[in-house]
Amino acid sequence: MRDVFVIGAGMTKFGELWEKSIKDIFVEAGLKAIEDAGVGYIDSLYVGAMSSGLFVGQEHLGAVMADYLGVNPVPATRVESACASGGVSFRQAYLEVASGASDIVLAGGVEKMTDGADVTDALATAADQEYEVYHGVTFPGLYAMIAKAHMHQYGTTRQQLAAVAVKNHRNGAKNPNAQFRFEVTLEQVLNSTRVADPLGLLDCSPVSDGGAAVILVSAEVARNLKKPLIRVIASSQASDTIALHSRPSFTTIGSVVKAAEKAYKMAGIKPTDVNLCEVHDCFTIAEIVVSEDLGFFEKGKGGEAVEKGLTALEGGKMPINTSGGLKSKGHPVGATGIAQIIEVYEQLSGKAGARQVKNARIGMAQNMGGSGASCVIHILEVK
Amino acid sequence: MRDVFVIGAGMTKFGELWEKSIKDIFVEAGLKAIEDAGVGYIDSLYVGAMSSGLFVGQEHLGAVMADYLGVNPVPATRVESACASGGVSFRQAYLEVASGASDIVLAGGVEKMTDGADVTDALATAADQEYEVYHGVTFPGLYAMIAKAHMHQYGTTRQQLAAVAVKNHRNGAKNPNAQFRFEVTLEQVLNSTRVADPLGLLDCSPVSDGGAAVILVSAEVARNLKKPLIRVIASSQASDTIALHSRPSFTTIGSVVKAAEKAYKMAGIKPTDVNLCEVHDCFTIAEIVVSEDLGFFEKGKGGEAVEKGLTALEGGKMPINTSGGLKSKGHPVGATGIAQIIEVYEQLSGKAGARQVKNARIGMAQNMGGSGASCVIHILEVK
Repeated sequence: MRDVFVIGAGMTKFGELWEKSIKDIFVEAGLKAIEDAGVGYIDSLYVGAMSSGLFVGQEHLGAVMADYLGVNPVPATRVESACASGGVSFRQAYLEVASGASDIVLAGGVEKMTDGADVTDALATAADQEYEVYHGVTFPGLYAMIAKAHMHQYGTTRQQLAAVAVKNHRNGAKNPNAQFRFEVTLEQVLNSTRVADPLGLLDCSPVSDGGAAVILVSAEVARNLKKPLIRVIASSQASDTIALHSRPSFTTIGSVVKAAEKAYKMAGIKPTDVNLCEVHDCFTIAEIVVSEDLGFFEKGKGGEAVEKGLTALEGGKMPINTSGGLKSKGHPVGATGIAQIIEVYEQLSGKAGARQVKNARIGMAQNMGGSGASCVIHILEVK
Repeated sequence: MRDVFVIGAGMTKFGELWEKSIKDIFVEAGLKAIEDAGVGYIDSLYVGAMSSGLFVGQEHLGAVMADYLGVNPVPATRVESACASGGVSFRQAYLEVASGASDIVLAGGVEKMTDGADVTDALATAADQEYEVYHGVTFPGLYAMIAKAHMHQYGTTRQQLAAVAVKNHRNGAKNPNAQFRFEVTLEQVLNSTRVADPLGLLDCSPVSDGGAAVILVSAEVARNLKKPLIRVIASSQASDTIALHSRPSFTTIGSVVKAAEKAYKMAGIKPTDVNLCEVHDCFTIAEIVVSEDLGFFEKGKGGEAVEKGLTALEGGKMPINTSGGLKSKGHPVGATGIAQIIEVYEQLSGKAGARQVKNARIGMAQNMGGSGASCVIHILEVK
């Protein structure tokens, strides 16, 4: 397999983008990425999107975006793995460049969620339609069950859950592209309207519109363009049961554990070698569970870690979600996995501004779908 | 890039599969393919599906199918390019094996269309939602416009369109997996209820349920399993404008022309080297236009070619749609591209029974999405 490098990135602001269509959003992100990379053309493109059929009545997004981006007749494919759609978009682009089939590939993601569709119903299609959704469970409910189990098994507290939101909003307040550019207090999170016990409104990532894109290239292209060599040192993906009830435990996510094992092996590193990580914090409990499953903290200690500031941007030994995470930056589901890569790319390029982690050399992005039935992990390293 | 081989295939019968869910259908096809290939495991899987969100309220099909197929925790990704979803599923699996990332990959496709969704509306999401669908056009209308233009420009007749359906039903009658296993006469096609002038009901492919899967492997795996070496000698993909009205001509499809050029170049062959071709005959006119754009016949002569029997299974110099095509075999959109590969694979393996093309050594599959905004072409050769 050939080495693959990220040489450019672009994204829209995340939020309620009333004045922009799904095409406008993707094209804005795509053009920014192409301009940032300084490439005159692309060989192909991927669009990660979860449910554009249900959200805006438009499938066939690969062809749609190739057309509106003005890059016909390049191959263009939409990929989907629920909220991990952005992650699989990056992975397919990585495989295409690694294979030698293409030298310059755009990996993008987009979602337009605020156009009137029933968002909770549409998102529920990421769970098992027959055995979960039909019986009325939605994602806040599924993650609430995970939270209850984690609290019961390890003594995790509501304060610890809330600490995730406080930290991520603190980071997101420094991110010009974040949907919620403001801080929240522990009290605000604890007192926010209960959505599914024990999760309050401020434990949940928001409904968002947004797009994100990055450019992946071969070593030759990266060198010719005299770009900093930020290499993809691991790409891994794994699956778990689609339904939460089929798993031996609610407090660990099999796909995260497996994908992490593969990623560390491929990169030849240990969890302690990672300088920062973007984690899929669709709900505050998700960040806690995943930070344990990635090996950053002992199982059951993730809540304590965030409470002690170990995952903070300032002074934390393992900064998590320096971008603000899904919680504060926003969660346009198809774009999320790519936006995570962008944060890692900017951190490794020294372009993260007020969010910059000093001496960041290795960064990780962990993106997952549903209640963790799919997980995609990428690790990038600056040479 | 590494050589890639197809070593196994499985599909369900296509049709109205009332008693089977989308999971049942995919799992049946997947298990048949795994059994046919004689492999004990797979490294990853792809699911091509166009609009499972709108048809059955289930996205996240990669994870769903990995779970129900019993292959967790392997990576599993759903890909979509409207009616070319099966073709892009095969292409992504091809790239993954070619890259060296995996040795054994399942490429599948599925669609469950008869469960109550408004099928015409769901299919219309493959066109431009803002500029085509919103104004009321659906696919029969779009292809009717292509037919009118072809008739006007080249003198193509309704009899020639009908001859496509007659030929494909003649082939499909010999295919045990076909939805419509019966022949139709020219008169029946000409007199069938008009859907969108000049297309009658028997010019249109049907609404279908079905699944299909193939196993792609590296040379080493194929040799170890002592399988016939049926190699993928070309994989190409191209895009055209999403909306028909944006194109310079209605009578040629840019994505087909470009993908064909790339495929012939990659394979190092000419159109006359191809022994049989599965063509995306969603409507009879599509087969005529595509058979010209693939270089089998001069532009404008595709109608005459089918009328003269040049594309017939018996005695045709270029047998097209020996499987029965989308018209007679059925068109569960996500499965179609894989089912085309299966027909080529069976022909090259000498397993096509009553449909066998003698001395078939090189076969092609052409799969497209929407009114041709995306096209994927694969060429297989038996060693």
